[in-house]
Amino acid sequence: MPYVNIKVTREGLSSEKKAELIKGVTELLRTTLGKNPATTVVVIDEVDTDNWGIGGEQVTELRKRQ
Amino acid sequence: MPYVNIKVTREGLSSEKKAELIKGVTELLRTTLGKNPATTVVVIDEVDTDNWGIGGEQVTELRKRQ
Amino acid sequence: MPYVNIKVTREGLSSEKKAELIKGVTELLRTTLGKNPATTVVVIDEVDTDNWGIGGEQVTELRKRQ
Amino acid sequence: MPYVNIKVTREGLSSEKKAELIKGVTELLRTTLGKNPATTVVVIDEVDTDNWGIGGEQVTELRKRQ
Amino acid sequence: MPYVNIKVTREGLSSEKKAELIKGVTELLRTTLGKNPATTVVVIDEVDTDNWGIGGEQVTELRKRQ
Amino acid sequence: MPYVNIKVTREGLSSEKKAELIKGVTELLRTTLGKNPATTVVVIDEVDTDNWGIGGEQVTELRKRQ
Repeated sequence: MPYVNIKVTREGLSSEKKAELIKGVTELLRTTLGKNPATTVVVIDEVDTDNWGIGGEQVTELRKRQ
Repeated sequence: MPYVNIKVTREGLSSEKKAELIKGVTELLRTTLGKNPATTVVVIDEVDTDNWGIGGEQVTELRKRQ
Repeated sequence: MPYVNIKVTREGLSSEKKAELIKGVTELLRTTLGKNPATTVVVIDEVDTDNWGIGGEQVTELRKRQ
Repeated sequence: MPYVNIKVTREGLSSEKKAELIKGVTELLRTTLGKNPATTVVVIDEVDTDNWGIGGEQVTELRKRQ
Repeated sequence: MPYVNIKVTREGLSSEKKAELIKGVTELLRTTLGKNPATTVVVIDEVDTDNWGIGGEQVTELRKRQ
Repeated sequence: MPYVNIKVTREGLSSEKKAELIKGVTELLRTTLGKNPATTVVVIDEVDTDNWGIGGEQVTELRKRQ
């Protein structure tokens, strides 16, 4: 009955990609730890690039230079 | 001074229901653990059904079959 | 399928009290929001009083004055 | 490589203020704990006042009386 | 730069299994979302079975019947 | 009434350093956002280096090479 929370920056993640991620993580927990997929919960949080900082800087700023 | 985080799928939860939930959890922590309501914090996160997975599947898909 | 995380200071919470809390929160989500108890997950985190701050101060210090 | 999550009520926080907060927390972790800013992650969550409770009451209600 | 938090019950997870899980999740985020492994953070929380509830019951009790 | 959660690797953080961190974050939220220190909550989680991954690798392994 694992609970997995995945936080990524909000940058146009499609519903199909989310489905793929949920399926993949649930499968990984089954193969590595033998966890039951039926009670594995995955929650994806999409965070605005203004609200995510790394290296003391907003991702919004980081993206401008990339 | 407990901190409670409640995550539910975003499916039309009214403000009244949220108030009821906040009041109920705060009261429960007072009656079971003797925690002071004044410093009990409750945060409700509503998560899109596309972003919530159980059994390796998005709740969006699950709801279609229910 | 709600997920609830309850954080309290680590101050001798018995297993019976934890059971009572888990049961109470699960029941509250059923009665207020109609959530299915079977897939309601509750995780209790006990946090050392040295690691919990309120008012800019550790709870350890706060307890000494109470 | 610390991870910091800051939850505040959603009440018009500007992008500039968020940048200031990210910079400040990252700097604080460097000066107090010697943590490397390059791998310090800060995530800010803005929570609707209807979804935040303190003292058993929604912040929305609290704000009306202030 | 995703952040992933995995919560499982504390039931003798070896360091090797944790390493496998960290590697697997990081790789999954690279292949499904194109995320850079270098800044992908994974934190595993092991939770006592007394502190984890499902179906209104502690996992400790659940395990006794399994 | 902000809630701040700081996760760092468990590597001998003293009680004094935790107090300094709690005080510093609370003060930062007051000066940047005007938040009331009295209701600012800070929770520090110390995570075993085996349970923290970056770049697909446990911090335990990373530390051996540093």
